[in-house]
Amino acid sequence: MATLSAASKKHKVTIVGSGNWGTTMAKIVAENVKSHPSLFEETVQMWVYEEEVTIDPKSRHYDPNSPLCQGPQKLSQLVNKLHENIKYLPNISLPENVVGNPSLEDAVQDSTVLVFVIPHQFIGRICDRLKGKIVPYARGISCIKGVDVSDKGIRLFCEAIGHQLGIYCGALSGANIATEIAQGKYSETTVAYDPPPIDSRGPSPTESPRESEVDLISPSKEPGRRSAKLSALPIDYPPLSHENVKKLFHRPYFHVRMVSDVAGVSLGGALKNVVALAAGFMDGLGWGDNAKAAVMRVGLLEMVKFGRCFFGETAKPETFTEESCGMADVVTSCMGGRNFRCARMAIERGQSVYEVEQAELNGQKLQGTSTAYEVHSFLKNEGMVEDFPLFTAVYDILEGKAKPEQIPDLIEPRD
Amino acid sequence: MATLSAASKKHKVTIVGSGNWGTTMAKIVAENVKSHPSLFEETVQMWVYEEEVTIDPKSRHYDPNSPLCQGPQKLSQLVNKLHENIKYLPNISLPENVVGNPSLEDAVQDSTVLVFVIPHQFIGRICDRLKGKIVPYARGISCIKGVDVSDKGIRLFCEAIGHQLGIYCGALSGANIATEIAQGKYSETTVAYDPPPIDSRGPSPTESPRESEVDLISPSKEPGRRSAKLSALPIDYPPLSHENVKKLFHRPYFHVRMVSDVAGVSLGGALKNVVALAAGFMDGLGWGDNAKAAVMRVGLLEMVKFGRCFFGETAKPETFTEESCGMADVVTSCMGGRNFRCARMAIERGQSVYEVEQAELNGQKLQGTSTAYEVHSFLKNEGMVEDFPLFTAVYDILEGKAKPEQIPDLIEPRD
Repeated sequence: MATLSAASKKHKVTIVGSGNWGTTMAKIVAENVKSHPSLFEETVQMWVYEEEVTIDPKSRHYDPNSPLCQGPQKLSQLVNKLHENIKYLPNISLPENVVGNPSLEDAVQDSTVLVFVIPHQFIGRICDRLKGKIVPYARGISCIKGVDVSDKGIRLFCEAIGHQLGIYCGALSGANIATEIAQGKYSETTVAYDPPPIDSRGPSPTESPRESEVDLISPSKEPGRRSAKLSALPIDYPPLSHENVKKLFHRPYFHVRMVSDVAGVSLGGALKNVVALAAGFMDGLGWGDNAKAAVMRVGLLEMVKFGRCFFGETAKPETFTEESCGMADVVTSCMGGRNFRCARMAIERGQSVYEVEQAELNGQKLQGTSTAYEVHSFLKNEGMVEDFPLFTAVYDILEGKAKPEQIPDLIEPRD
Repeated sequence: MATLSAASKKHKVTIVGSGNWGTTMAKIVAENVKSHPSLFEETVQMWVYEEEVTIDPKSRHYDPNSPLCQGPQKLSQLVNKLHENIKYLPNISLPENVVGNPSLEDAVQDSTVLVFVIPHQFIGRICDRLKGKIVPYARGISCIKGVDVSDKGIRLFCEAIGHQLGIYCGALSGANIATEIAQGKYSETTVAYDPPPIDSRGPSPTESPRESEVDLISPSKEPGRRSAKLSALPIDYPPLSHENVKKLFHRPYFHVRMVSDVAGVSLGGALKNVVALAAGFMDGLGWGDNAKAAVMRVGLLEMVKFGRCFFGETAKPETFTEESCGMADVVTSCMGGRNFRCARMAIERGQSVYEVEQAELNGQKLQGTSTAYEVHSFLKNEGMVEDFPLFTAVYDILEGKAKPEQIPDLIEPRD
């Protein structure tokens, strides 16, 4: 067994993304690499999608004499000069070892750990640009919430990334409202990281890739472990064990639990939004906390069942019922998330959720509604609509085919 | 196998108690016996602890010419004349087959099903009065939340009742705010009912009592199944199977899930109050929903562990993580229950929880604080204080030995 002292190299970490959640992850990771200098290089690259930003005269950074305040500035330069992402995470100081980099290709050069925090619709394009620009033995962690569900199947974002880049990619998800975490308020998260055996120290020439076509999931597959031609991490790097991956994310205010269940962690972040709509309907009806807790419980068990039905043994019930990415994320989303609030408003105003979305979200879309439609289309294709009565009830309500008052009846088990 | 048609008798049901929750249970049960006339007698007796009540002039029942409004009236008579418990469940109409009975002994006569809904401190005295007055083959369901914990051990209330009366007693608990349920708002609950094999149809003379001293629990015991000399239900009654017990409680607005885990159901209703205090501390600090969800998750897992440590295989993790009496009751209690609110106020006002209790609760006591002390005393005696860091943190905060801000550090797993 290689020990830490055998490692002569350190991991270089790049955050691919610099929005609200990406910048928060950069802050956390940058604090951690300084705490573990034998494992990680001190500089954390953060890829910044370049844009022009003007410092607001009300900002604490405004100084009429400063060259930074003479018109619009490049966001990456503001990040590096102010040590703050004033556009996407204002009023939060970043450690000085976070380096904003407008060049994606430059930011990932020689990085062994890539933390993906980009809007899911950009995954394909960004991975296209990364191909050939990253070291072949890089490892990824996707902090992108949700999964791709259609009538053709289910694809985990971390898997899509791993497949496109030919690397292993794990997943991070939890009850994580970014701004609260950036302020150092206590939170938990779940990191799923379970590379196939080739990732043990040194190359393992007898290990053949498990599968080469990776687009769609069907039961009994092993999500996240199927990328073709995985390259082993060279022996002069510290191993990316659960222990070391945890050190990259765990902070006194951000507690990490490591698991191996990539599918469960990814599904939790998607399906909870459908449950949050149901909870919002209950609250909108004025039915109180019993009813809200009931649909949360029923929803959580449908999440467990969804994992079991479509990912077999690889999606563990405990990931949903015991981890931050499951039960705790359901709780947070049903206490005040956007899906919950819009669903509640819809009932209170006698409007459709779509109308509330139009009126309240400035052109943004609710994740819960699109997930509810995608999940329904998938379940219909599988002939399993009736096995998920709460998910189906939410879809039917969105479609105007059922009323929220019918939820208790619709989800009552039939003997 | 005896079938339903073989049964010539019907179960008579008595609600022992008529407070807010007891009257709600009487309403539910009375609705259900009418729906299942082949199983249950139509009249549901409700024992009313007699007191004098004056109808308020603002009440919908006030009529200056009515004899009921000429001074104080007996509560049991008001229940039977107005079909409402105007003192403990005002403005909720009761089915006319609920009969308020001021005589405990008369109310339980010939009843085969006793539903206990009394304050826990009266269990001993009321069971003393019931001894010899009930049929020996009666079965109980305790709707009394909580357990008795002391440094001597843990006693489930349903077990205490079963032992004292020499009958089997199950338990009902869930995310159940009584008034919401009485209004017909949707809710769920969990009923644990698992009598020992003697309860199969017909007497079973070879079945010997499993245990005769029943006061204290230790691991590997079988809670609720240890009452000495259980009498078999005569064969001319319909069996009290899960299916039939469910019919007594399940309503379209009150969904019942049947389980066999009496210990898990009982523990959930007690330990969740300690978790609610922790959630209130987080909210009082203004730490947001992530932090609240985190302590709820950690607390739920300590509940699972408590069950496993002290009830062995009989307390199932799923009872806590998947049932209304576990996860859902934690959610409800941490969204707005009394323990949650008082803990939050304590932090906001810079007072102790004890001071808030004194100021806000009119002499009533918080269940969470007494449970936190009892659990701590028990864990200390078992040498297991450090195995339950959240329960211990709550105790330490109540004692002024720790600050709420320390919770993340105190509950962080030590490697």
